[in-house]
Amino acid sequence: MSQDTSTRRPLDRRAFVGTAGIAGAAAAIATPAIAQANPKITWRLTSSYPKSLDTLFGLSTQVAKRVSEATDGQFQIQPFAAGEIVPALQALDAVQSGTVECSHSLSSFYIGKDPAFAFDTSLPFGLNTRQTNAWLYHGGGRELIAEFMKGHNVHAIPSGNTGAQMGGWFRKEIKTVNDLKGLKFRIAGLGGTILARLGVVPQQIAGGDIYPSLERGTIDAAEFSGPADDEKLGFQKVAKYYYYPGFWEGCANVSFFVNLDKWNGLPAHYRAVVEAACAEALSHSVAKYDHSNPDALFRLVAAGAELRAFPQDVMQAAFKEAMALYGELAASNANFKKFYDSWLPYWRKEQIWFRVAELPYDAFTSSQVQSR
Amino acid sequence: MSQDTSTRRPLDRRAFVGTAGIAGAAAAIATPAIAQANPKITWRLTSSYPKSLDTLFGLSTQVAKRVSEATDGQFQIQPFAAGEIVPALQALDAVQSGTVECSHSLSSFYIGKDPAFAFDTSLPFGLNTRQTNAWLYHGGGRELIAEFMKGHNVHAIPSGNTGAQMGGWFRKEIKTVNDLKGLKFRIAGLGGTILARLGVVPQQIAGGDIYPSLERGTIDAAEFSGPADDEKLGFQKVAKYYYYPGFWEGCANVSFFVNLDKWNGLPAHYRAVVEAACAEALSHSVAKYDHSNPDALFRLVAAGAELRAFPQDVMQAAFKEAMALYGELAASNANFKKFYDSWLPYWRKEQIWFRVAELPYDAFTSSQVQSR
Repeated sequence: MSQDTSTRRPLDRRAFVGTAGIAGAAAAIATPAIAQANPKITWRLTSSYPKSLDTLFGLSTQVAKRVSEATDGQFQIQPFAAGEIVPALQALDAVQSGTVECSHSLSSFYIGKDPAFAFDTSLPFGLNTRQTNAWLYHGGGRELIAEFMKGHNVHAIPSGNTGAQMGGWFRKEIKTVNDLKGLKFRIAGLGGTILARLGVVPQQIAGGDIYPSLERGTIDAAEFSGPADDEKLGFQKVAKYYYYPGFWEGCANVSFFVNLDKWNGLPAHYRAVVEAACAEALSHSVAKYDHSNPDALFRLVAAGAELRAFPQDVMQAAFKEAMALYGELAASNANFKKFYDSWLPYWRKEQIWFRVAELPYDAFTSSQVQSR
Repeated sequence: MSQDTSTRRPLDRRAFVGTAGIAGAAAAIATPAIAQANPKITWRLTSSYPKSLDTLFGLSTQVAKRVSEATDGQFQIQPFAAGEIVPALQALDAVQSGTVECSHSLSSFYIGKDPAFAFDTSLPFGLNTRQTNAWLYHGGGRELIAEFMKGHNVHAIPSGNTGAQMGGWFRKEIKTVNDLKGLKFRIAGLGGTILARLGVVPQQIAGGDIYPSLERGTIDAAEFSGPADDEKLGFQKVAKYYYYPGFWEGCANVSFFVNLDKWNGLPAHYRAVVEAACAEALSHSVAKYDHSNPDALFRLVAAGAELRAFPQDVMQAAFKEAMALYGELAASNANFKKFYDSWLPYWRKEQIWFRVAELPYDAFTSSQVQSR
């Protein structure tokens, strides 16, 4: 948009003194000046989540609310739940094609197009929530993602996170890595690929079909998210062993996808508002999960869920396969390699640092409270 | 500010059809309409930090930049470093009195006025960074702080965090809690009060005077922040034992203080921009520390620093005294009690939850990397 002085400084009275005279100048300048200040814009947002997942769908309502407030109601974003105008897993395509201007979705849903999408969300055994933000904001992550997403006609902004997820619901206990052989486990993404190397038979089942499949025994186990989201699906009634941690999603960064042309066409100050609103939504979503997961976990345990930690040999075997898979993908996929060469040394140094200050602090304070 | 339709919908052409005729209507409406959109406002911000602490002073430059960008340059915040116009520890007073409109500072600097200020920053052995955000944003923390700060004529917005800090620099090793007796330790706030109950002699020394005091042996130890900030002061040359964790600051929430009348006088959409910019700065500051602390730690160790974990009996004894102190303060101070009654049960449930998903995940991944 034009950035001439009269429109950049709308209060500058000199703008109203023109050779065309007061009236002409006012009429000529006032309209673009007002338009420049806060033009009226309306966008449609398609979420990959249903309204029932209040924290994830809430990212969209929160960003829309903040953007409207910050632009004095001039920039309106209308959120639609998964399926209302676009199916959950076609959100990226809808933004690419311009069917909608923007979306809240998970890049890892699209690893079928290119496994490199995973770096925008998280990798199994990867950076935790804070380490992911460090890599994205200060470690060069966002620059790599911007370059990659440009090839898909999308601008991606970090806009939410789940924190470390649970390991899911199992009908039988997992005592050793051998108990994974032949296990029909509802799990998607790279986590499924890794566990398949240990004998698991990954199942792709939509959220609403998981419960009946577990109840009928069509599947032996299912992972979904954390206590606050899992509680809504009632898994504890049909698979009582609730495992942790969800090592395939130590966090999940939710992206705000914007059609690249729509993004570039936005006034600079609206782009600034959207960036700040997304960063705020990310911070609030982690806080909301950290706020709601404890009480949900206590209710699940009271309702019969039995907490179990994955055996160390399961963790070690899965970690070994994860690192092997990443090496193979980096060797065969240039996009994956470009991300991995930045991500792996970053992951290593963060692990060492967190051993020093954060983990000893958390380990001590958490050991001072008795379980319920 | 007025919210009439012609100014709320600046692009509505009907606004230009008035009984006074085009010229009169345009002149009459254009000016308030533009003023309504983005009025010109300039504020002064006094930071409690010097420019050398780039992450902490950087909170002010980042918020100022984002607020300017989001208001198309109309709302300007001018950051001043500690001492430029107001001494570091008088930032709150300067905002209360209206000497400046706003400040980045630490509420715990002001526990001399009322120990309840500590809840806005952190308590020794208290909520970690994520747990603090959960309590502030979703656990009722911000509402309690707003009510408390109103009594000090201030609106406080969470705007930065250091993450878990280090335990500081010691000239001699601490092998048992008895080694704390008579130890002249540069430490401020409630941490100093707690350690004094174990025989430590807390010292109040300004940042710039710590190094010579350690070198001369006037003091035996000093805590400051984390590796990225500590490195700038060169402590490893005069006190080689670098202890962790800094159990008196498991995190430190930095507040953006705004004079209450100035805050209430801001247009609603400017308040929205400031809130979003502060949340963004908080998230980016944690990420910046998580990004810069590892490399700083590696350089400090290469320069001769010897990492040591505080002995368990020191942690246990300090924890016992901390809880005793909080009980005494809650019994004698109504403000402290009001915060503590919300904070303590919240702290307990967060400790249990973090034992389940986050800590087992972090403990496993961090154990898979060899130290340098």
